[in-house]
Amino acid sequence: MRVSNALPWQEFGTPLFVISENQLRSNIKRFRKAFEDRYPQRVVTCVGMKSNFGLALRRIVAQEGAGGDAFGRGELYAALVAGTNPNDIVMNGCNKDLPSLRAAIQAGIIINVDGIDELDRIMLAAELEKKQARITYRMRPALRTLDEKYLVDPRFPSGYSIGEYMRVKKFGLEPQQLFLAYEKALQCKGIDLVGLMFHGGPSRRFGYHREEVVGIFELIKEMKERYGYEPQILNLGGGFVPDRVGRAPSEKIEDVASAICGSIVEAVAKLNVKVPQLYLEPGRWCVENAVIFLTEVGAIKKDIELTNKTWIYVNGNINENGDPFCPLGKYHEFVLARDANAAFSQTADVCGQLCNSQDILQKKKEMPEVQVGDILAMMDMGAYNESFAAQANAMPRSASVMVNGEKCMEVRRRETIQDVFARDIIPYWLY
Amino acid sequence: MRVSNALPWQEFGTPLFVISENQLRSNIKRFRKAFEDRYPQRVVTCVGMKSNFGLALRRIVAQEGAGGDAFGRGELYAALVAGTNPNDIVMNGCNKDLPSLRAAIQAGIIINVDGIDELDRIMLAAELEKKQARITYRMRPALRTLDEKYLVDPRFPSGYSIGEYMRVKKFGLEPQQLFLAYEKALQCKGIDLVGLMFHGGPSRRFGYHREEVVGIFELIKEMKERYGYEPQILNLGGGFVPDRVGRAPSEKIEDVASAICGSIVEAVAKLNVKVPQLYLEPGRWCVENAVIFLTEVGAIKKDIELTNKTWIYVNGNINENGDPFCPLGKYHEFVLARDANAAFSQTADVCGQLCNSQDILQKKKEMPEVQVGDILAMMDMGAYNESFAAQANAMPRSASVMVNGEKCMEVRRRETIQDVFARDIIPYWLY
Repeated sequence: MRVSNALPWQEFGTPLFVISENQLRSNIKRFRKAFEDRYPQRVVTCVGMKSNFGLALRRIVAQEGAGGDAFGRGELYAALVAGTNPNDIVMNGCNKDLPSLRAAIQAGIIINVDGIDELDRIMLAAELEKKQARITYRMRPALRTLDEKYLVDPRFPSGYSIGEYMRVKKFGLEPQQLFLAYEKALQCKGIDLVGLMFHGGPSRRFGYHREEVVGIFELIKEMKERYGYEPQILNLGGGFVPDRVGRAPSEKIEDVASAICGSIVEAVAKLNVKVPQLYLEPGRWCVENAVIFLTEVGAIKKDIELTNKTWIYVNGNINENGDPFCPLGKYHEFVLARDANAAFSQTADVCGQLCNSQDILQKKKEMPEVQVGDILAMMDMGAYNESFAAQANAMPRSASVMVNGEKCMEVRRRETIQDVFARDIIPYWLY
Repeated sequence: MRVSNALPWQEFGTPLFVISENQLRSNIKRFRKAFEDRYPQRVVTCVGMKSNFGLALRRIVAQEGAGGDAFGRGELYAALVAGTNPNDIVMNGCNKDLPSLRAAIQAGIIINVDGIDELDRIMLAAELEKKQARITYRMRPALRTLDEKYLVDPRFPSGYSIGEYMRVKKFGLEPQQLFLAYEKALQCKGIDLVGLMFHGGPSRRFGYHREEVVGIFELIKEMKERYGYEPQILNLGGGFVPDRVGRAPSEKIEDVASAICGSIVEAVAKLNVKVPQLYLEPGRWCVENAVIFLTEVGAIKKDIELTNKTWIYVNGNINENGDPFCPLGKYHEFVLARDANAAFSQTADVCGQLCNSQDILQKKKEMPEVQVGDILAMMDMGAYNESFAAQANAMPRSASVMVNGEKCMEVRRRETIQDVFARDIIPYWLY
């Protein structure tokens, strides 16, 4: 498929996302091994679809034996087309429509339930599909230990304690609602409650793994005492933080796995219940550093009079740099393609082309000397950038290529202006 | 074209953008009249493309005798296809590529220049097109009066004075660069410098119209003294703030026009130069309240244990509610379609479906009683929402319809899952 020996940006132009197949495979292998080596039951690694739903990337995820979490029919489609085992797919969401629920039941994937009212719609979908619905409940434990011990975590300057922050989020069933939902599920035909789910946010991000598990098992204890219930599956969601080029290393995933698996094993023993299957939903951790974003420098402006600033203008923009989660800040390293080891010699704002003074890819960034025409590689761009991409200023979105040694192929074609306006028409009465 | 007498959401489904042709026309008429009645020279109203580049909407803008500002070839295409007079189109941007510049010169529109280096590329484009390039310079005046008098404006809690904020933005030429650029333009073949541009940000938003004009004319005075230069065109950009349902009224556009036009006439008289043509770039002001967004309530959740909150889940989401500018906050009123005058009786977060706890369309919103299945109209949604729309969670984007009395037509078709994945392919070696 290669038409030349040209470098990717010469063959496919810029801006360009470049996916490393090998890096992606090695990330998933490492994540799986970290947990599977430390957990005495089945572990299912559902690589978060929302972080990157590109079909080519998902194909590799599936080949590596990982699953996915699908939020609606679009992501479910991508997971299935890529060859993901339906047993390893979860459907999340707080307001799933009937067609999504029917598709989920038909495919046999687990539906993660967010509210009691949802059960009626699931029952209807199960009836229409003539098939049992497998569900988990998304729980919202009180996590009081994350108030008392960690009332003010300097890394989480939100004005909330972490526990409080987790309690007021739109997702999940608070304890009393969880109990009511449990009772209701028993009466629902066609519904099989296979387990529980909790997604760690800042608690996970800042390393409070043990506190999280303790909070979850307090609730499971109460469910056992009330109903004799033991979950077959425990889904702990995502929020795992990968390393970024140019930043201090994050907590090692093996250490995270030790803390989580160890805490569950302890809690399970104390409660005398069966060890549940462990589902995890790492998105960013698996995909972020497997993708870089190549842009070309188009203009440089240095101010000395009104302000002392340098602006480097590239042909990328925040349309494709919209990651809304950025657990530990939005820092991305830039590497100069013609000299990857070039020393930093200036501080600049790296700007996009949009008519938006917020269109800065990186502020006050230490940079090497660059010239117009230089190619800059923006590192760690695989998570939430392509999947959140917009077309502000009617800008066509970038192409993506996948590389593996000598092999290189455009896996998402460059958008055209025709694409941007493809859905538009001028009404007949305006001609 | 109507297939039924159904209401738009019954015929076209939800979520749905609804454009009112009459409201849009009346906004543009009022804006034009406000300035044309008060200014002794030609006024060109370039309705900002970036706020909404839908072809149907742009057609009406063109029919109302307004122009546009195009940022790149996509917006230029939309302006021309909609029938905009090329004399009334401006191309903005800080890093325009050669194809965009050639298209601009070919169409005969004004290019707003942001950096000195750009002149070389424009000269090349003019040579290739065998046509003169008409340019303006985007200036960055010091605006020192907005430091001294308004060091701390309580409505602008940025940590900067407004003057300082305007001085450190990526756009425009600082004074010394402007003079150098002027000298360079004189030597450039194929370039005709027709005027100057300045875009008001918070200075405009907070009503410092006179201070802005004074700052601009200080610079024009210096250009006159140095070079005898008088601009034929003065483009003052956008940033005009419209009213929003449910909020205190903004400054009347007629009062804004009086302040701006009056200040220019004064400054011109003092300096003894010709009155320049006045270009303005209102985007939001013209389009915001001409569009509403219809969503359907899919779930309601009330918490009483961990927090005292109600969540109303609708089938829209922040993919299409991404307005990054929101000059005076992101407030949008919700109107219950079946009873537009229903009294507020509760406080709720109105949430989208995304796997993102930030996916809240409106926080702590006073709301009427609503039920699952109700249609809610989110008001004032015409600016920067469709144009910044994303597909996070592989969610297809909404349809738009235009209404005019009995006439109603889908002017942007609803996106499909097939559309979302239309550019994707799995590489041959992964099968």
